[in-house]
Amino acid sequence: MILAETTPIMLIYVLTTGGTIEKVYSERTGEVANLESKIDRYLKLLRLPDSEIRVVPLMNIDSLKMTDTDRDAILAEVKRLLPEKAPILITHGTDTMVETGLYVHRGLPNPAVPIVLTGAKAPLGFEGSDALQNLTESLMALRLLAPGIYIVSHNQVFPISNVRKDKALGRFVRITSG
Amino acid sequence: MILAETTPIMLIYVLTTGGTIEKVYSERTGEVANLESKIDRYLKLLRLPDSEIRVVPLMNIDSLKMTDTDRDAILAEVKRLLPEKAPILITHGTDTMVETGLYVHRGLPNPAVPIVLTGAKAPLGFEGSDALQNLTESLMALRLLAPGIYIVSHNQVFPISNVRKDKALGRFVRITSG
Amino acid sequence: MILAETTPIMLIYVLTTGGTIEKVYSERTGEVANLESKIDRYLKLLRLPDSEIRVVPLMNIDSLKMTDTDRDAILAEVKRLLPEKAPILITHGTDTMVETGLYVHRGLPNPAVPIVLTGAKAPLGFEGSDALQNLTESLMALRLLAPGIYIVSHNQVFPISNVRKDKALGRFVRITSG
Amino acid sequence: MILAETTPIMLIYVLTTGGTIEKVYSERTGEVANLESKIDRYLKLLRLPDSEIRVVPLMNIDSLKMTDTDRDAILAEVKRLLPEKAPILITHGTDTMVETGLYVHRGLPNPAVPIVLTGAKAPLGFEGSDALQNLTESLMALRLLAPGIYIVSHNQVFPISNVRKDKALGRFVRITSG
Repeated sequence: MILAETTPIMLIYVLTTGGTIEKVYSERTGEVANLESKIDRYLKLLRLPDSEIRVVPLMNIDSLKMTDTDRDAILAEVKRLLPEKAPILITHGTDTMVETGLYVHRGLPNPAVPIVLTGAKAPLGFEGSDALQNLTESLMALRLLAPGIYIVSHNQVFPISNVRKDKALGRFVRITSG
Repeated sequence: MILAETTPIMLIYVLTTGGTIEKVYSERTGEVANLESKIDRYLKLLRLPDSEIRVVPLMNIDSLKMTDTDRDAILAEVKRLLPEKAPILITHGTDTMVETGLYVHRGLPNPAVPIVLTGAKAPLGFEGSDALQNLTESLMALRLLAPGIYIVSHNQVFPISNVRKDKALGRFVRITSG
Repeated sequence: MILAETTPIMLIYVLTTGGTIEKVYSERTGEVANLESKIDRYLKLLRLPDSEIRVVPLMNIDSLKMTDTDRDAILAEVKRLLPEKAPILITHGTDTMVETGLYVHRGLPNPAVPIVLTGAKAPLGFEGSDALQNLTESLMALRLLAPGIYIVSHNQVFPISNVRKDKALGRFVRITSG
Repeated sequence: MILAETTPIMLIYVLTTGGTIEKVYSERTGEVANLESKIDRYLKLLRLPDSEIRVVPLMNIDSLKMTDTDRDAILAEVKRLLPEKAPILITHGTDTMVETGLYVHRGLPNPAVPIVLTGAKAPLGFEGSDALQNLTESLMALRLLAPGIYIVSHNQVFPISNVRKDKALGRFVRITSG
């Protein structure tokens, strides 16, 4: 006998910090830069009937320019949101994503929710971009992962202690620390 | 000290059975139907450097026309692939996806790998389609789910015993059986 | 010496009548039909800084169902707009586009503006669609054509007296009448 | 009586010189630059059953870097092709498109075919790009224009002697010389 039908809404926070994923092409300068947040436009392309996404724009910078002051701001925002017991997605440039993940990890060794960092090799809306794929994967991973800090990208999930960016390959690879 | 760097390739099977997700628009008839498999073209849009996707086209039919003979064929193929210990994605029409999932579940109450069924409300490549989202989510879910049979759609994961399609809402909802 | 700089705005009317170009996929029925006008959404994708496009939705039907009463309505609207001396685009199903063009031609043998009929083999927003191409071409052709009635499609311009639809080829071909 | 049915194939040359229209995003450097020709991939998105497009890649540079040596090369190629009596499209950066058009005009005051220059504000394949629109418009305009040299962009046709780029507006405007 079917006793009940309930599909609870899951609250998910998306903290945006910039990086390639949110870069835009400027017709005025011909350059690609972090000029305005555009993640909202792309989240609207996804069907998320049982999820409530709250986007929190923290900063919009190339991750090569990110300082520890910026990482403090990210950590502080994560801590501020933790009492809500909602999973957290952090969009971030890939160049220093591991550093930021480890920084948050040091400040929060045992978070009570899954925290995923993701980014992209090509900006949202550019031909052949991986950005919407990574966003979609990350939102799914947040539903399934145990509490902890991870990088999600290209159909892979890396615990933050087991990942580094391979600059030559241009993507994340698994490492085993001893 | 970093002792090793390895990102093992994961083998994933994709069994295609048709359904809306693979329907195409026929310029000759003006109708939308299961005429040819097109999932390969769309999987190529995803970056899957650490995954080896093997697509197995089983049938290409509207799931309202699916018979138990068809479901037997799906179950037989799943059983045939199980020794490879690779997760399995089954693309399928949403109308009878739950029936097929339960059918496979009866034949395989305790599969050794995660088996995900997914589909779409609008075909791959149609404006506003949810098809690529569902494919992307399913491939991620297969990385993280415990062995068992599930439906993945719209940022949701439903164990096959806890889901039904709500025809009025036009989507899957969670049920609790007693 | 540069004496003046002026780029006058050109008024262009777009009469929509339905046809494949404006068909939408219904997630409820799984069919493709003329359910709602969607040309506005796609015109917004074009940059038309010196054009003022006024869309006039006349009807939204498959052109195989178009009757002479419908064609009278189209002709009447064209006549009503003629005093504005603005070129006119008519979007229309391809199956009876020639008939409608000839009908307007009989009612208006010598229009004072160019009148272009266009349509599509696949609806706006469907993968591989020719619809936005045909719209873009038609708006350009209206800038350059002499007064008269034409079909524009697939980088071709056909005077209405020199065109028929080749059902086997599925496209328009030039004819020479004697 | 219908005497004949013929739709002759039109030969059209496309000379590519670079400019924003063909810029690509480099995942390695994060910059947008003229690294490889990509117009072929986008021309394939258009239906051109009665046109034979021959792409001639001449150079692939930002038009701000174009020298008179480059313009000589463009003019020489145009002259070389003229005996084929085929219309010619030149894709080009917008910044110095007028200069190149005037240069070709001085070398060929009365060409026997229409010659169109076009480009884009955002590269082919970038979100919101005008590049495919401009290509589509230009190919149509070449069908209809009288012999001469023109810039085609954003549903506008400018004879080369009556156009300049308005840097502030970021687009072409009509001028009247006296």
